[in-house]
Amino acid sequence: MRDALARALDDALRLYPDPEANALRARAARIYGVPVDHIVAGNGSDELLALLVRAIIDPGDRVAFPVPTYSLYETLVAVQGGKAVQVPFGDDFALPAALATACARLTFLCNPNSPSGTLVPVEQVEALARSVDGVLVIDEAYVDFAREHALGLVGRHRNVVVLRTLSKSFSLAGLRVGLAFGHPDLLAGLRTVKDSYNLNRLSLAAGEAALDDLDTMTANVTRIRRTRATFSAELSRLGFDVLPSEANFVLARRRGTDLGPLAAALAARDILVRHFAAKPDALRITIGTDEECAALLDALRALG
Amino acid sequence: MRDALARALDDALRLYPDPEANALRARAARIYGVPVDHIVAGNGSDELLALLVRAIIDPGDRVAFPVPTYSLYETLVAVQGGKAVQVPFGDDFALPAALATACARLTFLCNPNSPSGTLVPVEQVEALARSVDGVLVIDEAYVDFAREHALGLVGRHRNVVVLRTLSKSFSLAGLRVGLAFGHPDLLAGLRTVKDSYNLNRLSLAAGEAALDDLDTMTANVTRIRRTRATFSAELSRLGFDVLPSEANFVLARRRGTDLGPLAAALAARDILVRHFAAKPDALRITIGTDEECAALLDALRALG
Repeated sequence: MRDALARALDDALRLYPDPEANALRARAARIYGVPVDHIVAGNGSDELLALLVRAIIDPGDRVAFPVPTYSLYETLVAVQGGKAVQVPFGDDFALPAALATACARLTFLCNPNSPSGTLVPVEQVEALARSVDGVLVIDEAYVDFAREHALGLVGRHRNVVVLRTLSKSFSLAGLRVGLAFGHPDLLAGLRTVKDSYNLNRLSLAAGEAALDDLDTMTANVTRIRRTRATFSAELSRLGFDVLPSEANFVLARRRGTDLGPLAAALAARDILVRHFAAKPDALRITIGTDEECAALLDALRALG
Repeated sequence: MRDALARALDDALRLYPDPEANALRARAARIYGVPVDHIVAGNGSDELLALLVRAIIDPGDRVAFPVPTYSLYETLVAVQGGKAVQVPFGDDFALPAALATACARLTFLCNPNSPSGTLVPVEQVEALARSVDGVLVIDEAYVDFAREHALGLVGRHRNVVVLRTLSKSFSLAGLRVGLAFGHPDLLAGLRTVKDSYNLNRLSLAAGEAALDDLDTMTANVTRIRRTRATFSAELSRLGFDVLPSEANFVLARRRGTDLGPLAAALAARDILVRHFAAKPDALRITIGTDEECAALLDALRALG
């Protein structure tokens, strides 16, 4: 990546970037087996989510998503003046049946979901794509950590968009590179509202280098999955309910117990976990190194 | 800049960028003498233009700008469903009086203007700021090549936004870094609609390095102004009407003559100039190196 950036620096920064991100999309097409005209590159998948809302939603339009989930969906719908239809997940975070009948122009499914880490099986996602009235956006930010993904739906359903990012499994959150996969007719709306030069030359060069080096990503994913398995088992032994995670974090619960004080006690030991006011009996814990996970388990044992 | 990027690469790309671009804005505050809370950083000034339209304009709202000018204004207004009020420049590209009375919620002034290169004096810009009903956006993409700028208006008029970019005088179009200067109350609307992570870590690091090295920019500007003076004089000698340029390009005209064939003949010699269907008797010529300008003049003499 250092070499790719050095090449990008050699005088070319005076030139505008490629507005179509063709070199990046060509690599994505090869890796993911999706035609290049079915791909749009974004300044992180956050930009692609914003573009989708702006392209599809008029004020008052319904946008459905199961909750709790990625908080940006609600924010984007509010900015656009749409109507957010929040369908609660059940305790097991299975796909809520009401999502398919929410009469929404746009439906978001974060899969694997954050903060639960749970995965809706692709078979059920495909059934959802058939049932919804409008566009189904499957936000696969964490899917490289999961056992299956929904990219195969892109060729079969013209109302499906799948989003990927280099921020999680590629560990490149600082780079802001995301990819949208969908039918060209659907993506045309995104192209209309996106800034021409949404990705700069340095991001493009680094993103291309990252896609040229999948081994680094897969090694990272393999390590995290292994650590996730042992760490989840240990958390269960400590009395937490741990949802089966397909992401790079786990949601650990003690039903009926506010875990806010525990999160604060961990923070005092420089161990940061996420505690949500809306779900006080749960902690979202990112899978760190083996040493970091061991330190967290030690702290939990000490804190009781 | 190479060192700044190397530091940004050292592991930090796994971290999200600073959504507030504080280090970049602190440098801009120091250089431009504007308080840091009066500055928002964008993914190029194109993004800032788009954010302004989205933050201020509802469908049907009027957006005024003199024409011909930067074509993006019209595009952004159309995407947002606003009503573009295009006020024609006169032959001398002086500020058209009708702009002040266009009853627009948002007024754009590209100053110096593209493609004319002409500058509306800051005194007249300030009078315009007092006269317009809504927000006045002064797009100063080319202002480092000009004799004066309007940043002083930011402190005095709460309805003024000044835009700057690193794409022109800093020769960093590939980087996508722009800056908006305005009253915090006005900029709050931009913050609401902007993506959190609109600038990535590499752009931020390179943009900071560029602002730390103003000497490179000013040397570039000094050279281009000098070349612009001699080149404009030579074009006049060859029978072109050349508007007094305050930008890094000149508009050269032969009244009543379609210069399309001349542009094509130059292109055949690998010399690229801009010809506009809407203004066929003019060419927009970028100020290149002294050698490039000499080659263009030789070609014009040969083509007659």
